[in-house]
Amino acid sequence: MANKPSIPKGTRDFSPDEMLRREFIFDTVKSVFKLYGYQPLETPAIENLSTLLGKYGEEGDRLIFKILNSGDFLSDVGSDDLTERNTAKLSGLICEKGLRYDLTVPFARYVVQHRDEILFPFRRYQIQPVWRADRPQKGRYREFFQCDVDVIGSDSLLNEYELIRIIDEIFAKLKINVVTKVNNRKLLAGIAEYIGEENKIIDITIAIDKLEKIGADAVNQELIEKGISSEAVAKLQPVLKLEGGASVKLEKLRSILARSVTGMQGISEISELFSYIETGLLNGSLELDLTLARGLNYYTGTIIEVKSADISIGSICGGGRYDNLTGVFGLEGISGVGVSFGADRIYDVMTQLNLFSSRETSLSKVLVLNFGNSAFEYAFKILSLMRSLDIKSEFYPDPAKIKKQISYADGRKIPYILIAGDDEIKADIVTVRDMTSGQQQKVPLRNLKEYLIKEISKDGF
Amino acid sequence: MANKPSIPKGTRDFSPDEMLRREFIFDTVKSVFKLYGYQPLETPAIENLSTLLGKYGEEGDRLIFKILNSGDFLSDVGSDDLTERNTAKLSGLICEKGLRYDLTVPFARYVVQHRDEILFPFRRYQIQPVWRADRPQKGRYREFFQCDVDVIGSDSLLNEYELIRIIDEIFAKLKINVVTKVNNRKLLAGIAEYIGEENKIIDITIAIDKLEKIGADAVNQELIEKGISSEAVAKLQPVLKLEGGASVKLEKLRSILARSVTGMQGISEISELFSYIETGLLNGSLELDLTLARGLNYYTGTIIEVKSADISIGSICGGGRYDNLTGVFGLEGISGVGVSFGADRIYDVMTQLNLFSSRETSLSKVLVLNFGNSAFEYAFKILSLMRSLDIKSEFYPDPAKIKKQISYADGRKIPYILIAGDDEIKADIVTVRDMTSGQQQKVPLRNLKEYLIKEISKDGF
Repeated sequence: MANKPSIPKGTRDFSPDEMLRREFIFDTVKSVFKLYGYQPLETPAIENLSTLLGKYGEEGDRLIFKILNSGDFLSDVGSDDLTERNTAKLSGLICEKGLRYDLTVPFARYVVQHRDEILFPFRRYQIQPVWRADRPQKGRYREFFQCDVDVIGSDSLLNEYELIRIIDEIFAKLKINVVTKVNNRKLLAGIAEYIGEENKIIDITIAIDKLEKIGADAVNQELIEKGISSEAVAKLQPVLKLEGGASVKLEKLRSILARSVTGMQGISEISELFSYIETGLLNGSLELDLTLARGLNYYTGTIIEVKSADISIGSICGGGRYDNLTGVFGLEGISGVGVSFGADRIYDVMTQLNLFSSRETSLSKVLVLNFGNSAFEYAFKILSLMRSLDIKSEFYPDPAKIKKQISYADGRKIPYILIAGDDEIKADIVTVRDMTSGQQQKVPLRNLKEYLIKEISKDGF
Repeated sequence: MANKPSIPKGTRDFSPDEMLRREFIFDTVKSVFKLYGYQPLETPAIENLSTLLGKYGEEGDRLIFKILNSGDFLSDVGSDDLTERNTAKLSGLICEKGLRYDLTVPFARYVVQHRDEILFPFRRYQIQPVWRADRPQKGRYREFFQCDVDVIGSDSLLNEYELIRIIDEIFAKLKINVVTKVNNRKLLAGIAEYIGEENKIIDITIAIDKLEKIGADAVNQELIEKGISSEAVAKLQPVLKLEGGASVKLEKLRSILARSVTGMQGISEISELFSYIETGLLNGSLELDLTLARGLNYYTGTIIEVKSADISIGSICGGGRYDNLTGVFGLEGISGVGVSFGADRIYDVMTQLNLFSSRETSLSKVLVLNFGNSAFEYAFKILSLMRSLDIKSEFYPDPAKIKKQISYADGRKIPYILIAGDDEIKADIVTVRDMTSGQQQKVPLRNLKEYLIKEISKDGF
């Protein structure tokens, strides 16, 4: 026999068991998105490279999967281009298209392309795979799913408030305890001003974003290496170490950032957001974290990040406000805010915390055993009845040994088997076996409907 | 302003309206698959080219989208390979991976790769996009969705019977009137034997498959061109023109194919399948069509094809039995049967027949108007109540002019708006406007829950 076939490294097959668990996550996420008025959108897996390139930095450009032009892909390539072996240049000549790298850039492209049809504020969610030619490693894949939820065309902080409620409701439904951290880019800008390094805001945010991971000493060293004065670094320390709840921190920041217009605006925004949140209770906890920066330079206001309170796995959801996402495609001045849920990490957290019930892993409720040709018509009748009652049920297709059929039900975790052989047909009954308890019950055909409704569909399958 | 960005030809964005309609189709299809015990499976978009190439014929190989190797893709390419400009050879040197071309080959690859974990018979469904570098034209896309449902590891005709019931139930739920045609490859082989051209079965099936499209004369001409004798072509005519129901046709075939072992086996299989089908009623009509061949050479038994009875658009579902799908990956002797639903054509049929109700095109049930900061807490309370009742509702995020907010509700087809301004807050009421009738009603806050349950969620949103 030939070698077993395989799939490219960094990609995955999702088996039925995994699919049912993933569907549970996606369905939960979608139902909450819809409950808050967000609408579904999908964009093609293939985008023009002109749409993708230059949006994710140099490293990002390298990680975009490029698709070879079909047909004679060398027709426009000169001999010099070939012999020169400049792969970056050559790939631009032989590839026009690439695979989606995230859902944010295609969303911006969609909004600009369809701006005349879209009614703003536009709330959309998008759940699709993305592809990155990254080095595969544990928990990092070359094909993985993003669940993005964004509202564009509104600068109201009510959007941030509702996103935080969406986050809270989704993780409550998934039974994951979370800590949601918020910050505001304008606070970070104010702090950079305060320490006299407003031009180094990017270096500062990149460095302090690593605080939890690498510790204060390493962060400070990085800041010094980036050319930030030791006075500035010293001035930064007490700010990063501010203790207490959001209102305490904000009170202290009010005096620290009193002379920064941007910083005061950040304080005002965060205060407003917290005032909305305080009108109701959240299931998870919410913190103002001044070290939260999320590396991405397109955030201009609120920054949000969510972690599991029980498992250390990095962020499982995050995002923020951007004031110019569509500018790169020629549409300026449209503000938006959104977060992205990491389906793969959420799956891992739920697996580690044993949060998937058998409900998500078994599908068929009943297996009808196959007793051969003479019993088919009777079996068909029973199957039709069950399906009309929306009871997921399957018929064992081959007249195999009963032991084999039962072991199939066992392996598939099907909770009931239904026996309708010659004896049952003669007596106008069916025998139902509960696979968990092993108990059997004879049910007259005329009572079967009532029995099925009462017994089999009782747990809502 | 820059030129509007665009997407590659043959690809599509799916707007929220289109997404909701597509979701309705996919959800219907999935719910019936699950009702019959089929389990979900997903495979990666990216497969190794060694898995894909050679499985779809020469034309198919040309239509597979190839992914440029990342990094220095020329490192293993010699100078001669470059200057030779043999694109077929060169693409094999610079590309290892390609995009999924259908769901059948990845399914076969999955079954072989995971054969030790799979419990047979293995019923799976798979709904994912596929990509083909075809020339885009009306109704033909480079990225499109397939919905495949297959059972592998069982040669029982009960599987065909259940697939026909699945087809019938899905199209009844979608309210599409269909004609399902069945045939059997063994009947076709028997007919080829009968006319003395058993070695030309492939040419014969390819030709007669076109009967409906190009007519008998053109088919006969093609048969002659393929080297089939004029005596054989003459002998074929009365067989293709057999009239009557399945039982009449089978009766006549019994004498025509009496001397063909394969042909008689085909008759026996088709008779058995019809005997199962006759035990119950179908919503649509079912025909035995001796000219049905579906070009694909891997079918070995039953062949199935479904068309709309009202719209001429080609087949909207089709498939058949294959006895050796996994053989190409080294696993012999596993029989399977399955059909594929064409989501794009089904969408087109439903659009043309006006089968999408507004139910599938509007999502949010209520828009809560924004009356500014002083009214937020009251509005939040109402929104929380609605969402706890599973009523999809949104808050207009900006304190815009009321006229603008109402026109947003109108454009989004949101059926109710909820007014909770200063007057309402003072009186502890909310005003609900039915956007269809224009009627307004004042509802006391203490009665709101009851009112929402009775009035707003009454049509099951």
